[in-house]
Amino acid sequence: MARRKDKIRLGLFAHVTGNHMAAWRHPRADRFAGTSFRHYAEVAALAERGLFDMLFLADTNALWKGDTETLSRDPKTAQFEPLTLLSALSVVTEHIGLVATATTTYNEPYHVARKFASLDQLSGGRAGWNLVTSANEQEALNFSRTNHVPHDQRYDRAREFAAVVKGLWESWEDDAFLRDPESGRFFAPEKLRVLNHQGTHFAVRGPLNVARSPQGHPLIVQAGSSEIGRDLAADTAEVVFTAQDQLPAAQAFYADLKGRLIARGRDPESLKIMPGLMPIVGRTAEEAEAKERELQELIHPSVGLQTLSFMLGGADLSGHDLDGPLPDLPNTNSGKSRMALVIELARREKLTIRQLYQRVTGARGHFIVRGTAATIADTMEEWFERRGADGFNIMPPTLPGDLGDFVTDVVPELQRRGLLRTAYEGRTLRENLGLPFPQHTATLRR
Amino acid sequence: MARRKDKIRLGLFAHVTGNHMAAWRHPRADRFAGTSFRHYAEVAALAERGLFDMLFLADTNALWKGDTETLSRDPKTAQFEPLTLLSALSVVTEHIGLVATATTTYNEPYHVARKFASLDQLSGGRAGWNLVTSANEQEALNFSRTNHVPHDQRYDRAREFAAVVKGLWESWEDDAFLRDPESGRFFAPEKLRVLNHQGTHFAVRGPLNVARSPQGHPLIVQAGSSEIGRDLAADTAEVVFTAQDQLPAAQAFYADLKGRLIARGRDPESLKIMPGLMPIVGRTAEEAEAKERELQELIHPSVGLQTLSFMLGGADLSGHDLDGPLPDLPNTNSGKSRMALVIELARREKLTIRQLYQRVTGARGHFIVRGTAATIADTMEEWFERRGADGFNIMPPTLPGDLGDFVTDVVPELQRRGLLRTAYEGRTLRENLGLPFPQHTATLRR
Repeated sequence: MARRKDKIRLGLFAHVTGNHMAAWRHPRADRFAGTSFRHYAEVAALAERGLFDMLFLADTNALWKGDTETLSRDPKTAQFEPLTLLSALSVVTEHIGLVATATTTYNEPYHVARKFASLDQLSGGRAGWNLVTSANEQEALNFSRTNHVPHDQRYDRAREFAAVVKGLWESWEDDAFLRDPESGRFFAPEKLRVLNHQGTHFAVRGPLNVARSPQGHPLIVQAGSSEIGRDLAADTAEVVFTAQDQLPAAQAFYADLKGRLIARGRDPESLKIMPGLMPIVGRTAEEAEAKERELQELIHPSVGLQTLSFMLGGADLSGHDLDGPLPDLPNTNSGKSRMALVIELARREKLTIRQLYQRVTGARGHFIVRGTAATIADTMEEWFERRGADGFNIMPPTLPGDLGDFVTDVVPELQRRGLLRTAYEGRTLRENLGLPFPQHTATLRR
Repeated sequence: MARRKDKIRLGLFAHVTGNHMAAWRHPRADRFAGTSFRHYAEVAALAERGLFDMLFLADTNALWKGDTETLSRDPKTAQFEPLTLLSALSVVTEHIGLVATATTTYNEPYHVARKFASLDQLSGGRAGWNLVTSANEQEALNFSRTNHVPHDQRYDRAREFAAVVKGLWESWEDDAFLRDPESGRFFAPEKLRVLNHQGTHFAVRGPLNVARSPQGHPLIVQAGSSEIGRDLAADTAEVVFTAQDQLPAAQAFYADLKGRLIARGRDPESLKIMPGLMPIVGRTAEEAEAKERELQELIHPSVGLQTLSFMLGGADLSGHDLDGPLPDLPNTNSGKSRMALVIELARREKLTIRQLYQRVTGARGHFIVRGTAATIADTMEEWFERRGADGFNIMPPTLPGDLGDFVTDVVPELQRRGLLRTAYEGRTLRENLGLPFPQHTATLRR
């Protein structure tokens, strides 16, 4: 197998106390993370030490649905808003990309374009926007709607939203600002571009009142895996996050998405595919397994049950003995592959309900790799070389603890194999990822 | 005259390159301010050295109306978005309050509540929200509207918007978060408050997914001076900025607004009134005057004329000789007092059009005090003691230059007179301003 010439890209999913559902109860997590800037500064410093390309924050504009009893065990209930947090982190970091999630469903494109452009300026060209259409249907209730916008309508709006945002990011040519005290000319009038967008969902005149940054404009990141989501990504994204836990499926996703790029005349290297990966690092395989068990046992039954029920298509497990078997469920053949896999696992290994939720809910459906640094590097190398991934969105189970282990143990192992950079190459996120500088499109009216 | 027992409050209007219209052309201004975090960090450090209560940023979601020729001379055309900038500044400051403007007309209350609450957490209780309803009618065109929302409708929406934001800020009781790893309880379920707001403009369920900060919630600042604006301020604001350049008018405004507080059963000390003040500091009166002249001469004719025309109710001055007299204007008796004052000034001092715009446009209608530190302190003392002001929103003509002069020369003079603190008293913005900690209202449903 010919080795790939590029390097593995690393994102850090900086999920408050950690990516494991019960992380906040673990002594290696900072349970005050949601109100501690110091925590995030430490996490970002560790990630820069590990030469990560970017730090990523998820987002939602509401609590998730659930009874108060279960919600009261969730550290995501109160935390920083991502754009404000990343703006603060821009001051204490130098190299790492700063990627925040913002929904197109309950936002206006001018605000989104402007805030990300401002973060891009603050960070010297390290901002990224993870475009989502809102998975959390509860958001509707905080934005004067009684129901969530349906999936296809959300994507229709998202497509136009993204076009407006990109158009606004092109409001100024790169050398528009003269700031010439002699002539009194602050910008060159002919280098201002007025968007004048008139569409189905939006009418936005522009221009944006933020200048272009050293990387042109913020990176666009997406994670949609539906047909319509893949098409939107192929049209607009530069990084795609995905949840994959089997190499063949990851390869299929990778080939499909890169194929869509080629069909559009885009260079397949101009979009990086990064599956989530939860590394559980031990000095021995046994140590890693013990670490995982320790986390699993911290999952509170009400949280585990609610998540398992969600993964089983909403099945009601409330009347059943936690230490008994999974009951027969009505719709195992509904085509929901994750649901079928979970049920098959329970049957095959004769797991109780408790054992089952401990096994499958901790990583929220993402790929867990446990073992020594060599084992984890082996898996990453295989996925990378066999084109299941261009890199990984690393999801340490606890933060900062397990991120420290990854940086100390796995990063040097990847470097020894020539799979990871030994220093940042560029000034901007785009340069570090090897992505092209976005040229102004010719179609904009001045 | 019995001396007031409280101290003069200081805000800093951190207006990019400075508050004088032509500041950016002056060597003591940083003309790269709009894309330089370092500039704002320096300005904030100077303001903390001067023991300012807060740093304030204006905002607009569009360029101001104007021909491209005139706009191209305006440094406000491209700058940071305030909430992202203040979040970054929270990291390099320790004491100063961080107040950003956000409009209620083209925003959603959940977003505003959340971003300010997050800034409040990042800064350890130093955030403030300057509630505006958008003076810049061009914003409508960036938010899918063909016309600006009319004034009364904007205030009607603003009133409900403010109520929703305050309600969301009360989503969690102050001791709601337990973060108890033993019990697995992250928050106490009975300390969560769901807003369930159903109103004319908004339906917002809540709760907010950000915890309360050490100051309870962000400060609310306003600047509206219309009847409806004063009523809204009396109902909701804790600081009011105002443009006043004559003590009697300032006293009338002060008495009127404090009276509205008393009529509502609010302690008149629970709202601080802070007129804008542009200090032009010299070692001698002549030096200050020369400094002012230097700035006036930097106003480009197209900018000066456009601003003068705006101050004269839209009068068209384009066909007239800049070095000739102000022509007769049709509607001098229209009751627009500022317009009448400007025309009277031109007639009395026989000013040419150029001399007139140089005199009146530089400070954008705010109060200029020029002279030695003692002269400036005299004016501040008089306005404070005679209850025309609780403090001032200081508008240095250039930034950072003239802020440095104010901090070096005027601040010690105020301290010598016992009018200004010699150290920060509290941890939070609210504590430093002597404002009460906001208790939860009893009316919220849990």
